[in-house]
Amino acid sequence: MAEAAPVDLRSDTVTKPTPGMWRAITEAELGDDVYGEDPTVSALEAEVAALFGHEAALFAPTGSMANQIALQLVTPRASELLCDADAHVVTYEVGAAAALGGISTRTWPPAGGAIDPDVVAAMIRPDGFHAVPTRAIAVEQTHNRRGGEVIPLATLQRLREVADTAGLALHCDGARVWNAHVAEGVPLATYGALFDTLSVCLSKGLGAPVGSLVVGSAERIAEGRVIRKRLGGGMRQAGVLAAAGRYAIAHHIDRLADDHARAARLGESLAPFGVLAGTVRTNIVALDLTHAAIDAPALGAAARAEGVLVSVLGPRVARLVTHLDLDDPAIDRAIEVLTRILKG
Amino acid sequence: MAEAAPVDLRSDTVTKPTPGMWRAITEAELGDDVYGEDPTVSALEAEVAALFGHEAALFAPTGSMANQIALQLVTPRASELLCDADAHVVTYEVGAAAALGGISTRTWPPAGGAIDPDVVAAMIRPDGFHAVPTRAIAVEQTHNRRGGEVIPLATLQRLREVADTAGLALHCDGARVWNAHVAEGVPLATYGALFDTLSVCLSKGLGAPVGSLVVGSAERIAEGRVIRKRLGGGMRQAGVLAAAGRYAIAHHIDRLADDHARAARLGESLAPFGVLAGTVRTNIVALDLTHAAIDAPALGAAARAEGVLVSVLGPRVARLVTHLDLDDPAIDRAIEVLTRILKG
Amino acid sequence: MAEAAPVDLRSDTVTKPTPGMWRAITEAELGDDVYGEDPTVSALEAEVAALFGHEAALFAPTGSMANQIALQLVTPRASELLCDADAHVVTYEVGAAAALGGISTRTWPPAGGAIDPDVVAAMIRPDGFHAVPTRAIAVEQTHNRRGGEVIPLATLQRLREVADTAGLALHCDGARVWNAHVAEGVPLATYGALFDTLSVCLSKGLGAPVGSLVVGSAERIAEGRVIRKRLGGGMRQAGVLAAAGRYAIAHHIDRLADDHARAARLGESLAPFGVLAGTVRTNIVALDLTHAAIDAPALGAAARAEGVLVSVLGPRVARLVTHLDLDDPAIDRAIEVLTRILKG
Amino acid sequence: MAEAAPVDLRSDTVTKPTPGMWRAITEAELGDDVYGEDPTVSALEAEVAALFGHEAALFAPTGSMANQIALQLVTPRASELLCDADAHVVTYEVGAAAALGGISTRTWPPAGGAIDPDVVAAMIRPDGFHAVPTRAIAVEQTHNRRGGEVIPLATLQRLREVADTAGLALHCDGARVWNAHVAEGVPLATYGALFDTLSVCLSKGLGAPVGSLVVGSAERIAEGRVIRKRLGGGMRQAGVLAAAGRYAIAHHIDRLADDHARAARLGESLAPFGVLAGTVRTNIVALDLTHAAIDAPALGAAARAEGVLVSVLGPRVARLVTHLDLDDPAIDRAIEVLTRILKG
Repeated sequence: MAEAAPVDLRSDTVTKPTPGMWRAITEAELGDDVYGEDPTVSALEAEVAALFGHEAALFAPTGSMANQIALQLVTPRASELLCDADAHVVTYEVGAAAALGGISTRTWPPAGGAIDPDVVAAMIRPDGFHAVPTRAIAVEQTHNRRGGEVIPLATLQRLREVADTAGLALHCDGARVWNAHVAEGVPLATYGALFDTLSVCLSKGLGAPVGSLVVGSAERIAEGRVIRKRLGGGMRQAGVLAAAGRYAIAHHIDRLADDHARAARLGESLAPFGVLAGTVRTNIVALDLTHAAIDAPALGAAARAEGVLVSVLGPRVARLVTHLDLDDPAIDRAIEVLTRILKG
Repeated sequence: MAEAAPVDLRSDTVTKPTPGMWRAITEAELGDDVYGEDPTVSALEAEVAALFGHEAALFAPTGSMANQIALQLVTPRASELLCDADAHVVTYEVGAAAALGGISTRTWPPAGGAIDPDVVAAMIRPDGFHAVPTRAIAVEQTHNRRGGEVIPLATLQRLREVADTAGLALHCDGARVWNAHVAEGVPLATYGALFDTLSVCLSKGLGAPVGSLVVGSAERIAEGRVIRKRLGGGMRQAGVLAAAGRYAIAHHIDRLADDHARAARLGESLAPFGVLAGTVRTNIVALDLTHAAIDAPALGAAARAEGVLVSVLGPRVARLVTHLDLDDPAIDRAIEVLTRILKG
Repeated sequence: MAEAAPVDLRSDTVTKPTPGMWRAITEAELGDDVYGEDPTVSALEAEVAALFGHEAALFAPTGSMANQIALQLVTPRASELLCDADAHVVTYEVGAAAALGGISTRTWPPAGGAIDPDVVAAMIRPDGFHAVPTRAIAVEQTHNRRGGEVIPLATLQRLREVADTAGLALHCDGARVWNAHVAEGVPLATYGALFDTLSVCLSKGLGAPVGSLVVGSAERIAEGRVIRKRLGGGMRQAGVLAAAGRYAIAHHIDRLADDHARAARLGESLAPFGVLAGTVRTNIVALDLTHAAIDAPALGAAARAEGVLVSVLGPRVARLVTHLDLDDPAIDRAIEVLTRILKG
Repeated sequence: MAEAAPVDLRSDTVTKPTPGMWRAITEAELGDDVYGEDPTVSALEAEVAALFGHEAALFAPTGSMANQIALQLVTPRASELLCDADAHVVTYEVGAAAALGGISTRTWPPAGGAIDPDVVAAMIRPDGFHAVPTRAIAVEQTHNRRGGEVIPLATLQRLREVADTAGLALHCDGARVWNAHVAEGVPLATYGALFDTLSVCLSKGLGAPVGSLVVGSAERIAEGRVIRKRLGGGMRQAGVLAAAGRYAIAHHIDRLADDHARAARLGESLAPFGVLAGTVRTNIVALDLTHAAIDAPALGAAARAEGVLVSVLGPRVARLVTHLDLDDPAIDRAIEVLTRILKG
């Protein structure tokens, strides 16, 4: 008997193309995008810009590159970016902001959706001859390390006011902004209107194999195209990838509600073991094992032995992510395995 | 009557997947390569490392990123790289070596195949407390801006000795090293043995849509994986691209001889107008229009109007490149159009 | 009648050489320190290294350069430094760590002496393929923006253990470590033994016109000499400055007790207006005007009009610093003026 | 009998203050220059700006820092600077342009005074989406590694036209521009008018112990003040150094003619051994030992044993520099010792 495929809850990045997506890929019209001649890439860029109500967008091979292009656009070398201490841009991008962009980052305590715009406002440095000048603020919607938390629209609107008052740019790491859109019913263009730049990802919840975009003004995106070339992200017949992205945008946004429902079910089942009630808003379940009998690496190993894969983010923190390749029976199996292990 | 497709001689980057390559793409087994779990990417990396007799290789979205990863591996920040003044790494990578790697570059006069290892040796700085220390030398095989020239094996061997004597690393920008291999009959592993790192490209003569690799020791490639993540090149289901690369390596190396023959024919036909006899060694024809009646932009525009696309590299320099998507009738048409325009 | 000189409480950097120090300057034996031939600089470096029980020291034109040299020594490009959010190195050095060193900085909430080593330990990132690796921790002794607070020796010893456990380097921004030494009675060598690198300043409490030093191992200082040259800090006959520094070390350390006594008196007198009892430990008085009738810029302007200069660090924060050029009558005058203004 | 002091021909940086200069130092009025309150520094900056007909100037601890501040002002990160291959800024500043400023440098063959403006013009890159954009040109007047050669005024004027045509900035590394002024009789303001920025040095031929200045527009110098702070060059009571600089400018410019006469005499005496007739224009004698019986390190060692110090710049290149601390008998002694050794 064939071994069952593992239930992979590590990340929504692990999904593989659906048959429909494969068809879109093989039917893609291609060209050399370094010359601006790949019609599929150009179409994707135009569609995503329109979704967020911005003038332009730029395709990039990864979410990290999309973020770093945007950070370089809004935070000149030797100036400062504010973000939360658990933000992807300062945690999981291998020091790129400082090492490649010469950008200083300063962080407020991890907050996810509970960002206090007054705290952020108080961090902005007054001008002067000693201090590094603050030039931009970044938020992450939804928030990866905070269990997919959603920043409420009202909080974002107040942050926009804070940024405007101080003359700062506001960037959204929107790798999973699609999930916020579905969970909150906030139009993408409403989010788009609040930010100077956004990065959005096709290869997380949307299920495309590779690709992200930077969204912004035509002027910024033109400059971003040069930054992308310098970082080594100017691909040739990238329509192979962009075709999957176009398919994902056409077919995989609304269905994120299913991932959210499955994550909610997972969260309820694991509530006795470290999931705070009501915290699962999108497709991520953060498991706080501080008071559990088992730590995160041990849980990870035991679950893996039974065909369930979870992410270990720290000694007492694990993360479960639902996605396109997980159906209800897979979630049932994960619940069965994980509760058994956690009960000890 | 449908308009004929243009004869695109601008670059060998413009090719589109063949039916066989499309099949390879859609049959690719995928996984999340950030977790090292994409079997197609891993297989491609192992195959390319083996071809060059090195321990390891790393897939990257572009040749520029592959080069910049390698430069950061062999040239620590605040040290110096020597290369020729027309090298791609200092000409067409938007200042990345200095801006991202903090690398100083110093160049010898453009030389292509005619590099004088003694001139290079004399450039190496003696140690001391003022000077930036020289740490690496880079060559380009074949040489893009020098009309696809091939550096003779004996020259490379003497450069290797120069590097060894001074304790320097030697990098090969081998985006088109496949063409040198086919033109000279030098085994890829013979080239590989001469260099500490090589970059090789799948999306130029080999005809894959996207992708390059860095080749080197296991230790260097492990470090290169971190540099790639920082630059934003850590893609997810990159097997979509790698599958095309594996197909290209299996099927498109030997056939480069056809591109070379077509380039030679093109070169002979255009010899009266600025192609030096005997200089066309691979798939690139450099047209020196210094003594022509027409300058390069005018030639480019006139040819484009008749469906033939060429690259304009300078006021009096044009470049023609043969590739997988150009057959003999296309070359015939190009010869007809270009000679007619050049005759004035 | 001649106008009295202002009582300048803005900073201990404003002092001018004493007659004895001028004599030391004019009697200095000089040489070219880029060649390592300035005997006065060499003597100063040896003396300071010995005071802290380290192998070597390096003279630098400013405390900022001394800090940045040390940070580059202990935190390789693209790795991370932890420090507190009010540290001079991330606040007042114009973004140098990121812009020049490619160093990511992450901060714990401002804490001065009340650093919690467990909080710091929890911030250290586990190794992995996404995160920027933590490589060093920096503390500031005494702490400028925290009113000259002193980190207790026991706290530093626990931080050293935290650093050792994680394999991190520990740097001390010791611009005012002399004040901690005098206030606590802790030998300089005891402090020195706890750190991989220290920066110490001659032109703050010690009263020299210009100059700081980096202290560390012979190997690190040799590398620091190259970094100093690159930053543009390799001066020629720097003995002109070093002579003043040698004099300051011989004559101005113990007398810091007088500055501390005067600051304590100032702090007691201003206690009703926002100085927390017992917080004035060294030569800095931080005035928290949150509940005062007057804000910091207004206090600064009103005091300046009466010949008393104070630093305005924020809308409700002012700073007073005692130093070599302020005697008891000057402090009396400052108390009289400031209490009058603060009473409103 | 006391041993005679060595005749130190290594560099004009080795000079020590004269009695008059010492007097100027001890009489200097000081203040905290970070607050812009050191009257001696401010006076020096105003005087030097006026000499070159520019709006403003900025004091820096070294010529390297002055150059690097200027390069960052005229060459934005990720753009390109053109200079000659032997220029101090790419040879002796430890890679700072790339490592700290992210600046790409590209060089024309070493040329000193014989710069060909047409060659420089041909190097300027056309705009486009691949290339690093050229933004500035730097020249060195007089030229250190080219034996103190002077670039003729007409050449500089043509370079200015080249820069204007292409919209580039023009920087002068004028560490020894004083020597060109004296040798050619060209007013400093005439040189000043040709450049966007100049660096000038007080501690070479002018004999001050420490210090250089950047000269430029008020706007550029204001920005330069921030760059200087970031590099760690914002010194406090820097008037100690600036006083010597003011004295040097008042008393030591015209006397450079004596250094030139002595260098000429030295050059004539050594003509048979590798000094090209007529090449000694200022205070530097470059000795080309290609055809000599002795190489440069051996010459250096033998001369040192007899109390004559020379610089060894390469296996077959030595450099002799005259300066304020060398009188005619010292030159006589050097001639006697060196000719004896060179005769073998």
